[in-house]
Formats: sequence, structure tokens, C-alpha cells
Amino acid sequence: MITINEALQAVLDQRHAYGTEEITLSKSIGRHLAEDIFTDRDAPPFDRVMMDGIAIQLGHIENPFQSSYAIQGIQAAGAPKMELLGPDHCLEVMTGAILPAGADTIIPYEEIEIKDGNAHIQLEKAAKRYVHYRGSDSMKGEKIISKGKLLTAADIGILATVGKTTVSVAKLPSVAIVSTGDELVDVDQAPLPHQIRKSNVHSLCAALAQQGIHGEMYHINDDKEALQKTLSKLIEEFDVLLLSGGVSKGKFDHIPAVLDDLGVKKLFHRVAQRPGKPFWFGHHDKQSTKIFAYPGNPVSTYVNHLFYFQQWLHASLGNPIRLEVKALGEKVPGNPNLSRFLSVRLDPQTGQALPFNHNGSGDLFSLTETDGFLLLPQRDGDFLAGEQLEFLHVL
Amino acid sequence: MITINEALQAVLDQRHAYGTEEITLSKSIGRHLAEDIFTDRDAPPFDRVMMDGIAIQLGHIENPFQSSYAIQGIQAAGAPKMELLGPDHCLEVMTGAILPAGADTIIPYEEIEIKDGNAHIQLEKAAKRYVHYRGSDSMKGEKIISKGKLLTAADIGILATVGKTTVSVAKLPSVAIVSTGDELVDVDQAPLPHQIRKSNVHSLCAALAQQGIHGEMYHINDDKEALQKTLSKLIEEFDVLLLSGGVSKGKFDHIPAVLDDLGVKKLFHRVAQRPGKPFWFGHHDKQSTKIFAYPGNPVSTYVNHLFYFQQWLHASLGNPIRLEVKALGEKVPGNPNLSRFLSVRLDPQTGQALPFNHNGSGDLFSLTETDGFLLLPQRDGDFLAGEQLEFLHVL
Repeated sequence: MITINEALQAVLDQRHAYGTEEITLSKSIGRHLAEDIFTDRDAPPFDRVMMDGIAIQLGHIENPFQSSYAIQGIQAAGAPKMELLGPDHCLEVMTGAILPAGADTIIPYEEIEIKDGNAHIQLEKAAKRYVHYRGSDSMKGEKIISKGKLLTAADIGILATVGKTTVSVAKLPSVAIVSTGDELVDVDQAPLPHQIRKSNVHSLCAALAQQGIHGEMYHINDDKEALQKTLSKLIEEFDVLLLSGGVSKGKFDHIPAVLDDLGVKKLFHRVAQRPGKPFWFGHHDKQSTKIFAYPGNPVSTYVNHLFYFQQWLHASLGNPIRLEVKALGEKVPGNPNLSRFLSVRLDPQTGQALPFNHNGSGDLFSLTETDGFLLLPQRDGDFLAGEQLEFLHVL
Repeated sequence: MITINEALQAVLDQRHAYGTEEITLSKSIGRHLAEDIFTDRDAPPFDRVMMDGIAIQLGHIENPFQSSYAIQGIQAAGAPKMELLGPDHCLEVMTGAILPAGADTIIPYEEIEIKDGNAHIQLEKAAKRYVHYRGSDSMKGEKIISKGKLLTAADIGILATVGKTTVSVAKLPSVAIVSTGDELVDVDQAPLPHQIRKSNVHSLCAALAQQGIHGEMYHINDDKEALQKTLSKLIEEFDVLLLSGGVSKGKFDHIPAVLDDLGVKKLFHRVAQRPGKPFWFGHHDKQSTKIFAYPGNPVSTYVNHLFYFQQWLHASLGNPIRLEVKALGEKVPGNPNLSRFLSVRLDPQTGQALPFNHNGSGDLFSLTETDGFLLLPQRDGDFLAGEQLEFLHVL
């Protein structure tokens, strides 16, 4: 049985680029940028007025202000550049306007009084203020966002500013989600006493939707021939298969053997972790299909997906993630043999991760109360309150 | 000028329920539940086998195991309940199967040897193990998810388990996003020297899309009549208007006056915060329209949206959020007059929020490097390293 770190490394080694596509700006939030982004102008593109008020020509920095300036007009935002008539004149200026020619400082309305077409001013000390100079943020041609960046709403604004109506992003893999198990019936069915409704595939599908991936759902019974036939087809048609169930030691857990028959190379089966120990992972060399075969119980599937698939996906799309860390809220005994995903809630006051009890990996309902999972590595000694540990936020 | 807390309270007081709608399960991730969810069966729904192995009848807890049991057959997952012939017999059982009648404990394959149709066993001490008893997680009719919950992928699995093919969720408000300012041109235009491309409306639209809201974009020039005509129509047609620009003290900042003319009640204008001081907020009593008029500069608009609109939206949809907290990474001087939204990056090792320098609220490009904003309240003394402060994650 391999450790969680060895398993993660084997998964990340299978990261795969699925090409790029050009999409419209408005669809690109949450996608991974596949091109570097450069400014097409200086930023700001002109000497930009930062306050509503008047623009004057101070000249030398040590010159005092005059006590009044004749107002010659208004320089509005969006209007072409005007020109100051001279050092005894001013132009009213609006935030966002281009600085008038000849002007070098702004005095805000709060600090002047306007009377009879003149701006009067009583300030002790003059200063050149409130001009956001052309190119002071960045120069034309500077790289402002790098390839691989996960695009946020703020990035969309930046892309708009530099004139990107479309943007090149990493293509998402196509994913099939496969439930197995004769005990499973559809959501709209009334299960017999020994049956349960499918749930993992719906969780996985929803988690993928959060990443912009449309997962196709399939179900295969615990029947070796049916598994062979359907999985063989799916391996050809999809980039990734997410399987749930059929990887334990049961008589009808055919999946490892069937995948082997189909030429899928097993990279590992069983990881020293709880929950989710029977996790099986492999890939098909010829088709490049990646296969995440999760154990059937809901918490195991969910946490393996959060930990392994999510990290694999981001690495594949060009931006490996580093897990965030949270402080553990109370002492937890170590376990030298198993890494653990500990269900926690985040304390709203302190931000610490507080473990809470539930009935083990089968208890699906406990997941609704979980804020995430703290990763406790294999260790002899205790985990102490306040210790920083990697954290998986629920999706 | 009011404080940030007073402003937030005024915004939250305007929370508004927009009714409910029944949608298919697969579309419900990220939506707010508008009904309580109850189990339709016990959980587990039957005494459930937790390991692959054999099921036997131990009887009294202090009985020893026999050294061998005759295998009478296999109880597969998904098969109707079988019956143990007696205490000297066993049934092979698979994880997820119903516990056979007469059986009361499971011995995993790891602990037995199968030979000549018998299961042999060499265990010192007997114990009743590996049965997940019916109803031990929850009983039929128990409330498992409450109205208002923001649905995660795990919740979708739970809803599937209890047979919800459709689910009642809070309806989202309809939102118009309005840019104003004569200096703005479209993304596909080449701006003149004194012009810039629209960016805030694209950021806002992307942020709304993350919440499942389709925002309609509009642009109005700095013209009082055009503003009056278009805003009057939008107030009738939409639940919420997000405006960007036109709320400063400039000659062409007509928005406060126009909104007043249109019967919109101003709840506040200007908040003691940086960036984003000129934020204007109001509502139209008759139409119940809420109007968030953000200052025009990009960081101001973005941070006001994250802080005010996001909290208003969640409260309106039935689940007021509590902001997460992060530890400040280094000392920052206090400011008794202004609350501040401090741009930070999160240290991957410690999780602490590290301030980083940029050129002030106009520097749109700095936003791509920001992980979020730490909220520094008005205060005389310093903010110390390690202090826990409210945090807004970028969207």
C-alpha cells in the first residue's frame, strides 16, 4: 500500500494538456488562461485627473498657490485634451479626465471656493497632487497576466481594458462518470429494502459543473461482460473516467480485473489513507485516458475527488494548486499508519478547523455540515491545537 | 459620512426575498435551498454490510468464534435478503449488501481462509463488527438539510439519496449592470488618447455569473436626460441596478440627482472607507428596486461589490454569510477615520494575509495578484501581526 504523497505524485505525473480554445470574454471566468496577456497601452493611458476640482499650472514645486484663478472652462472625462491659457487660469476638471495641457496639479473642490468665474483658494502650502501619470502603473507591452492563471472577475475586467473580446483558455477534459453496483437505483425510483439510490455520480457531476465541465453519467451493473463492453467504449470516447464503487475485495468488484483486460495500466490500488483506502488509479497508454476509480462509499468518493482529481485537473490546465492551510482547533491523536482526511467546521471567530464527530466514511448526511477536510499526515505523535495543516474546502 | 458598519447594516436591511422556483437537481449546485429536506428512509435503510467477507451468527456477544463455517452461498450487494441456515453456516457478503437474516457479525476476507467450501478462522476474541445498522445515521423523517443552505456537491448527493429529482431554491434577482462615463468605449474599440475601455461592467457581469445570475449590461453617457430615461426604465424592469461611475463630486456626476428625481430613496452616499468612499446606495419603494451605485474606479467597484452586494445577496437568498477571518501577516498602522480594504496575498505556508503594495484604488492590474482584501476597521492603534481580521476572497 502506498502513501498519500506517493499516490498524489503518481496522479500529478499523469497531468495532461488538452489543448486550447478561443472563447468569448464573458464565458471565461473560472477558466485557465492559455496565453500571456500584455498591455496594449500605457496604464493609465494618459495623465489622468484623480479628483473633481480645478487643474492649474504650478510650475516649480516650491511655488506657492495663487489666491485665485480665472476659470476658463471645463475639462470633462471623455473629452479631448484642452489647454490651459496660463498660470493665472484654471480649468475645472473631472475625475477620469485627461490632464489639460499646461496643467500640473489638481486642487479638489473641497479646497476651493468658486465666485464670479474665479476659483479662490486659501492653502498654506502648495503641492503637485492628484494626477495619476501616464504609464505609472505599467508601460505598453508589459506582461500583466501570465498563462495558466485561473481567471477571476477582476481578471475579466483587466482583459476588457486591454481590448480582449476573446481569450485563449485551456480546453477542459471530457469526463464520464460511472456508477457501478447492483444495489443502486435511479433518483426517481422507490428503492426496494436492499437497494439505495445513486448519489455519488450526482455529487461528482455537480463538482465537475463547478469547474465548467459537463460530466456524462453512466451506470453499469456488477457484471463482468457489461463492464468490459461499456468501459472499453468509454475509454475510447472520454479523456477521463470517474468510477465509483467496485474496487474493494468483494466477489463482484470486477473493476480492477476488467480495466487490466482493457489495457489500462494500474498506477496504484489502495492508499494508506482514511477514508478512501481502496482508491484505484490508472491510465490507458494508447488512448491517454485517465481513470479515477473511487471506492463506493460517499465520503470516500467525495474526499478522493477533492484531493486527487482537483489537483490533477489544475495541474493539467496549467496551474498546479497549492492547498490552503488552516490551523487545527484542538489536539488530535496521530496515526503512524494512515493519513487521514478529517471532517472539520471552520470556527467563524478564529478561522480554526474544528473536528466534528460523525459515523465514519459511510455517513453521507454528515457531509452537509462539513466545511472541509484537514489532511492529517501519517505521524506517531499528536497533532496539536494551532498546528497549520493542509485543508480541502468542500465544493 | 457613515461608517462601514452603518453602511453594511443599511444594505442588509434592504434584503429582499425574490420567491422560489423548482429546478432539476443537476442545476441546483450553488443555489440556496428554499425547503427543508427530510430523509425518506432510515439511513442506512437496512442493516448494511461494511466489509467484504463472511456473515455469521455469533449470538451472545461473549460467544467465541467457531473454527470453521460452512459456506452456504453469497449475499451480493443489491440482492434481496438471504437467510443463514444456522450458527455453523456462513454467507459470503459484499460491502453494501443487506445483512442476511440470522447473521449478526461480519468477518473480513483478510481474517479467514476459504478451503473446501468452508471458511476457516483463527481469531482469539470474537466481536460483533462491520454492520452499519439501519437508522444508525438518521431515522426516516429527520431533517437533514435546512432551508437557506447553499448547496454544495455533497448536498446534491444527499438530495439524490432521498429521491429529490427537483428541488425548491430561492429565485435569483434580475440585475442590470450600468456603466456611465463619456470616457468609456467598448472592448472591441480602439480608444482615443483620452478614452478608456469599459472594464467594471465586465468584472461585475463575471462576478454575477459565478452566482448563477445573468447580468444585463447597459451604458449611459454623462447626459442627464439619457440617464433619466434609461434609469427610469431599468428601475421598472430589474430587481437590482449595479451602477459604476458618476457618483463623485464632478460636474457631470448626475446620478444622485437623477435617482432622486426618479423617486429612489438615498440610504447613504459616501462611506468612511478606502477604497470606495463615494459609494451610493438606495432603493425605490414602489418598485422595490435596489440600487448599488459604485464609484467608477475599478478597485473601488470590485471591493464594494464583494463586500456589500455579496452579503446583501446571500442574506436575500436566505443564508446571511459570516465573513471568513485570516491572520494579518505583518503590522499595519491604524487609521481612526477610515476603514480600509487591504489588498493581500495569502502565504501558502502559514495561511496569513500579507499586504502588498500597489498604486492605489485606480490600479486595476494589481487586482490580478490579489488573493483578497482584509478589512481593517477604523482604529487609533496599530493592527498587529497575527491579528484575526475579516477577509473577502476574490471572486
